[in-house]
Amino acid sequence: MSEFTHFNESGKARMVDISEKTETARTAHAASSVIVSRDVYEKMAEGKVKKGDVLSVAQVAGIMGAKKTADIIPMCHPLSLSGVDLSFRWEERGEEYELHIAAFVKTKGSTGVEMEALTAASVCALTIYDMCKAIDKGIVIGPTYLVEKTGGKNGDYRRNQA
Amino acid sequence: MSEFTHFNESGKARMVDISEKTETARTAHAASSVIVSRDVYEKMAEGKVKKGDVLSVAQVAGIMGAKKTADIIPMCHPLSLSGVDLSFRWEERGEEYELHIAAFVKTKGSTGVEMEALTAASVCALTIYDMCKAIDKGIVIGPTYLVEKTGGKNGDYRRNQA
Amino acid sequence: MSEFTHFNESGKARMVDISEKTETARTAHAASSVIVSRDVYEKMAEGKVKKGDVLSVAQVAGIMGAKKTADIIPMCHPLSLSGVDLSFRWEERGEEYELHIAAFVKTKGSTGVEMEALTAASVCALTIYDMCKAIDKGIVIGPTYLVEKTGGKNGDYRRNQA
Amino acid sequence: MSEFTHFNESGKARMVDISEKTETARTAHAASSVIVSRDVYEKMAEGKVKKGDVLSVAQVAGIMGAKKTADIIPMCHPLSLSGVDLSFRWEERGEEYELHIAAFVKTKGSTGVEMEALTAASVCALTIYDMCKAIDKGIVIGPTYLVEKTGGKNGDYRRNQA
Amino acid sequence: MSEFTHFNESGKARMVDISEKTETARTAHAASSVIVSRDVYEKMAEGKVKKGDVLSVAQVAGIMGAKKTADIIPMCHPLSLSGVDLSFRWEERGEEYELHIAAFVKTKGSTGVEMEALTAASVCALTIYDMCKAIDKGIVIGPTYLVEKTGGKNGDYRRNQA
Amino acid sequence: MSEFTHFNESGKARMVDISEKTETARTAHAASSVIVSRDVYEKMAEGKVKKGDVLSVAQVAGIMGAKKTADIIPMCHPLSLSGVDLSFRWEERGEEYELHIAAFVKTKGSTGVEMEALTAASVCALTIYDMCKAIDKGIVIGPTYLVEKTGGKNGDYRRNQA
Repeated sequence: MSEFTHFNESGKARMVDISEKTETARTAHAASSVIVSRDVYEKMAEGKVKKGDVLSVAQVAGIMGAKKTADIIPMCHPLSLSGVDLSFRWEERGEEYELHIAAFVKTKGSTGVEMEALTAASVCALTIYDMCKAIDKGIVIGPTYLVEKTGGKNGDYRRNQA
Repeated sequence: MSEFTHFNESGKARMVDISEKTETARTAHAASSVIVSRDVYEKMAEGKVKKGDVLSVAQVAGIMGAKKTADIIPMCHPLSLSGVDLSFRWEERGEEYELHIAAFVKTKGSTGVEMEALTAASVCALTIYDMCKAIDKGIVIGPTYLVEKTGGKNGDYRRNQA
Repeated sequence: MSEFTHFNESGKARMVDISEKTETARTAHAASSVIVSRDVYEKMAEGKVKKGDVLSVAQVAGIMGAKKTADIIPMCHPLSLSGVDLSFRWEERGEEYELHIAAFVKTKGSTGVEMEALTAASVCALTIYDMCKAIDKGIVIGPTYLVEKTGGKNGDYRRNQA
Repeated sequence: MSEFTHFNESGKARMVDISEKTETARTAHAASSVIVSRDVYEKMAEGKVKKGDVLSVAQVAGIMGAKKTADIIPMCHPLSLSGVDLSFRWEERGEEYELHIAAFVKTKGSTGVEMEALTAASVCALTIYDMCKAIDKGIVIGPTYLVEKTGGKNGDYRRNQA
Repeated sequence: MSEFTHFNESGKARMVDISEKTETARTAHAASSVIVSRDVYEKMAEGKVKKGDVLSVAQVAGIMGAKKTADIIPMCHPLSLSGVDLSFRWEERGEEYELHIAAFVKTKGSTGVEMEALTAASVCALTIYDMCKAIDKGIVIGPTYLVEKTGGKNGDYRRNQA
Repeated sequence: MSEFTHFNESGKARMVDISEKTETARTAHAASSVIVSRDVYEKMAEGKVKKGDVLSVAQVAGIMGAKKTADIIPMCHPLSLSGVDLSFRWEERGEEYELHIAAFVKTKGSTGVEMEALTAASVCALTIYDMCKAIDKGIVIGPTYLVEKTGGKNGDYRRNQA
């Protein structure tokens, strides 16, 4: 049965030794979302063409966030990422609008990039909050979760989505 | 009516000028959560006393994350935080367990600390995911949102919670 | 006559003691530029409306660069910036096009923000190079210089421009 | 014909996927410069032997700047640099003196180090400005440009210099 | 006879070119210590079970410190660490108590991880000082030294310990 | 009697709330040292005039290290340092030479700068190790300790030195 790997025999945190793991191509896809009011939605949509594109800034923040993952998450291994991308999709939900954020990260290395994808999606969502909070402080971020990962000896993972 | 403040007249992002704002005491309280399986819950609870405390590591990560906010969120002002704290509360939800994360940040400055509290809560949740993902990759983070803020000329904010 | 202030009596670098300086409002305006071929110019102009806006990314990079100044420039004091903005202006120069970059930084503090403005302009220009280098590696950055500063006991400075 | 590679199909910035590129030895050589008055030149020359060597500090800053490139330039891939060096050469230009800065970076990796060399040269020049600005705020940095790169599937590049 | 390798022919610092070195498994083990009064010792021991575990925080700090080594030490190469761990051992010394800190770092790369191990041990010790300084500012850190390294063409090193 | 201040009532680490503390001028002076063989000592002394000055690089590293303190030490408050300086003094000790490192930090703020001074001294010493380790891996760092602090409501501290 699986156990925590991030603790040593004294029960203190460690960065797991991955020196025996082989370098393979690895990908991860994480999702987050931001739920905003119609007012915020309309201003974001309008801004894109006229006044300033919130999502362009959030995209840059998410990509830079992926690169900071090992600096932010204590037990994460530093990695040479080979590609990061994010995409957005709006969904109308009654009086509210949900912006779906998808983050994709690739590397060729000895450990996976799940945390990099989750961090990219989270930082992207936080940046959207920051840029819209003057209009609405009630914006909700998430849920945030791993959608899929490939590569590595433990095989691929794909979330069951209803 | 409120408008985006983070764009200049060319529609490009800027860091808003806060030099006219007065320095006041400011606080923010943000919430996030992590939903885990009973298996992960029991290992986290057991680990606390025997093998290694996931929440201690996540607490440190959240506090350090608050200090990195201006480095992670593009338009955030760098701030001298005067205090950061996090607290946890478990809630049983059928076969799953929800860990409620509360982040509290204080400063004396010209702008609020909402982003610092939201970042602390998010980094804390991401760290828990990282430390438990060897057991379960299906852990869900969030929702993440602002609970309350005080201080500043626009007055206090408190989220309506059903 | 003026002397270097960044060395101690042993001739080793130090971060100058500014604890006796008073906190005042301070601004700095720095300029840089990027000279590109017509091909790059047209792709940047076209991309803005259709495929991706190089200058939006460079704007974000410049603002984040201003915040990293004390981390990049060894003897710079860490500062709480109160505002950062950048603006762009194209000038046709025969077969080439020059993009003029202007960076504006404000603070209320004990030392000036010249380095923050110069760093913002430089990072902005480097980012434009990075995003266009697949098309043309011959792009030239600069000159980069201080246009104006205000505030502080040594008074204001304004560059003579022919 | 060449196109921007740093945008995805939605026109938003991405970090280009380099996972298919092969690891090869790569080098880059970038140049920048600083133009100073005779007064500053003489103080820098004198300081080198007596009071404090501006160029030693700028050299350290440039090398550390090369390592920060992926943190500063949004779409840059994080890289394991295998060597960084800088050299200086003074040229008298009438009443002024131009300090030529050359930055050399090497790696063995899947992408080039042009940005690392350009960043090293830029940070080096900015540091010189910082350390001399108490004497002369009119110092001009640049032009900054790529002199040469080797390695990678697109072959070598060498700037035509008149 | 050995010479400094971190200077170029002009006597200025450089990051040594390691592109010809082969990638091998490398380990380093460094030691530091913290000498505290009986009062501090008893509070740390008691805190572990009741009020808050200083060493858990210091462990996290040391691991994160190892990852920051290339950012802190100017001529250090950035490295992809494959594992970091720390362990503690108390020794009674008359009226004082010495906490022995051991840091272990592994990588597969072109250069050693001595600096990463030394930095991890130092940051761990500094964090203990920080968390205990409200009780006793007289705590002494160190000595800090390399115990052992393996891997690399210059062979292994093991400190003679009396 | 003094207690740990860096834990909350749940026994988890927090960044102490200093919002009630008044801003005063504060200084700290920390010491570290590096003990080297005669061979290293002679090369460092010779290098200073001919081939490259280890201490100049270490000085820059120490100053930059002081600015990174809140990023390295988990519970440290981010601070706007107003001055940082380091000085060196050699002492002959039989066949070995001890380099005494003194770090001085000043700020005007709500909390002390002991950690900044200790970090500056430690990073300075680690850098010297790094630059000399090709000659001698047996160099010992420390002890590292606080010599003096002034300012703040708890009054001044001065170490008793035999």
